[in-house]
Amino acid sequence: MSNHPFSEESSVVAAEASSEALFGKRVSIEQVEEGHDLAPKFDAAGLIPCVTTDFASGEVLMVAVMNREALAKTIETGEAHYWSRSRQQLWHKGATSGLVQKVVEMRIDDDQDCVWLRVEIAGGASCHVGYRSCFYRKVPVGAERARHTALEFTEHEKTFDPKAVYGDAPNPTQL
Amino acid sequence: MSNHPFSEESSVVAAEASSEALFGKRVSIEQVEEGHDLAPKFDAAGLIPCVTTDFASGEVLMVAVMNREALAKTIETGEAHYWSRSRQQLWHKGATSGLVQKVVEMRIDDDQDCVWLRVEIAGGASCHVGYRSCFYRKVPVGAERARHTALEFTEHEKTFDPKAVYGDAPNPTQL
Repeated sequence: MSNHPFSEESSVVAAEASSEALFGKRVSIEQVEEGHDLAPKFDAAGLIPCVTTDFASGEVLMVAVMNREALAKTIETGEAHYWSRSRQQLWHKGATSGLVQKVVEMRIDDDQDCVWLRVEIAGGASCHVGYRSCFYRKVPVGAERARHTALEFTEHEKTFDPKAVYGDAPNPTQL
Repeated sequence: MSNHPFSEESSVVAAEASSEALFGKRVSIEQVEEGHDLAPKFDAAGLIPCVTTDFASGEVLMVAVMNREALAKTIETGEAHYWSRSRQQLWHKGATSGLVQKVVEMRIDDDQDCVWLRVEIAGGASCHVGYRSCFYRKVPVGAERARHTALEFTEHEKTFDPKAVYGDAPNPTQL
């Protein structure tokens, strides 16, 4: 709201204090693997990967990353927040498209360096290309590969029109 | 089999040739997002993340990474291969524990920088701690957090005894 440097500084301090209160220190392998404390590990870039599945179908919708703030906001609000690497900013999923992800359940893995969100989405779609899931193509493996090698579409119709939803916003896909 | 330097060199060349034949060049966003070519994107470290779910239950079992060789071997053999960052080597999942992951379906995401494997595992277990899934703990979020903050176990009994399976092999979890 204000551009005064003290305001920015205190909001950063507040965000850090908030995530400090949420996240425990990593003390021992036993505590991390078998304990009841949330003590997530962020990588050298300060990020933790997150898999998001549809609560009803179990389908993997997307894989993204969170920084401390995104993980804290997801826990506090119950709505999925990620860190956008292409835009280098906090990403409240659905803020543009309206397809907010409501977290039904959050899980953390054994060594606490990965998060799993089970979500419900109004409209059911998640992918910026317009499909329900980002994983709309199958790769033939093993014996199947002998018959054909081309990717196979698992969704044949888009759930929404990306042009109508995102307009001229730059496509996040990078070559 | 042989320690002769030429043998090693030619096997590296063969592995590269094999993955070159499998993986297409990334030419345009349209080709990557809407096409039928497998043209995966490996990060600066040469890795691509992979989510692995149980084909029957849909449960997320683990999240790991693959290098070019691991992805090529998974496609060719129909059994999950990863890159072990802790051991810095190709990791044929189940080679030690016997809990091999048979790939029923492989998917690739919109920008082809992430893989999803749907697998069947003899014995049903996947996690080195002994649980079925690595994601055996729930993190309370949103309104639920007001009631309690401790992680909640979703599996109450281990599927196997890690000591019996892995013996004194070092635990891959790092603080």
